[in-house]
Amino acid sequence: MLPYNIDHVAIAVNDLDAALAKFRDQYHAEPISREIIDDQGVEEAMVAIGGSNIQLIQPLTADSSVGKFLASRGEGLHHVAFAVPDIEAAITFLQGTGARLVDEEPRVGGGGNRIAFVHPEAFAGTLIELVEVTG
Amino acid sequence: MLPYNIDHVAIAVNDLDAALAKFRDQYHAEPISREIIDDQGVEEAMVAIGGSNIQLIQPLTADSSVGKFLASRGEGLHHVAFAVPDIEAAITFLQGTGARLVDEEPRVGGGGNRIAFVHPEAFAGTLIELVEVTG
Repeated sequence: MLPYNIDHVAIAVNDLDAALAKFRDQYHAEPISREIIDDQGVEEAMVAIGGSNIQLIQPLTADSSVGKFLASRGEGLHHVAFAVPDIEAAITFLQGTGARLVDEEPRVGGGGNRIAFVHPEAFAGTLIELVEVTG
Repeated sequence: MLPYNIDHVAIAVNDLDAALAKFRDQYHAEPISREIIDDQGVEEAMVAIGGSNIQLIQPLTADSSVGKFLASRGEGLHHVAFAVPDIEAAITFLQGTGARLVDEEPRVGGGGNRIAFVHPEAFAGTLIELVEVTG
């Protein structure tokens, strides 16, 4: 199950507007999308960098997963997302390796894409998102 | 100063061999390079994912920067690297925005590429590497 791309690298931020302004100043990159994902308790913006993206995520509430991340670790790298051709196949394959998943079934993420999170226990304390890009 | 690509996403690991074996099992991806970077106190391996790479880094000593990172935070996402066309221009531009840099002059990183690190204070607690890819 070889991912065909790094879809995005996500950075948790306290203030999405301020972070987008700073990123624009430093790297001349503008967001290509911005949306609220209620299911994940975040507002997120995608900034394209070549064939991949930086995703900036701000929690909607302090008790969301990203809110707790910010409270305990502060702003910083949050997860990396791999684009996969078939999310069910990717989930089934990873289950077969014994990897612990957060999502055993796909759910809908940003851009309407079907996603699943792999638990940080599965690989080097790293939260990995699988994205079946359909957009 | 728009980076033209995400060159790599780096993950700090305790055991590079074990991490490469697990990544191969889970994502069918093999390292395309592996080297010791004495200057950074790490052994690192690059695994290509589409047009970008996952970089796995193991500290050579406990008192290296990555060794201290592992001791305090455990394995996990360590930095993200942007490919830039001209590293001196990128450094000068970022200095002009007031961003704090770790390296005010380029140094030699993996693959013989010239690199510079931007301090996590500059953007959202995130260690960002600039890479002038010449390989």
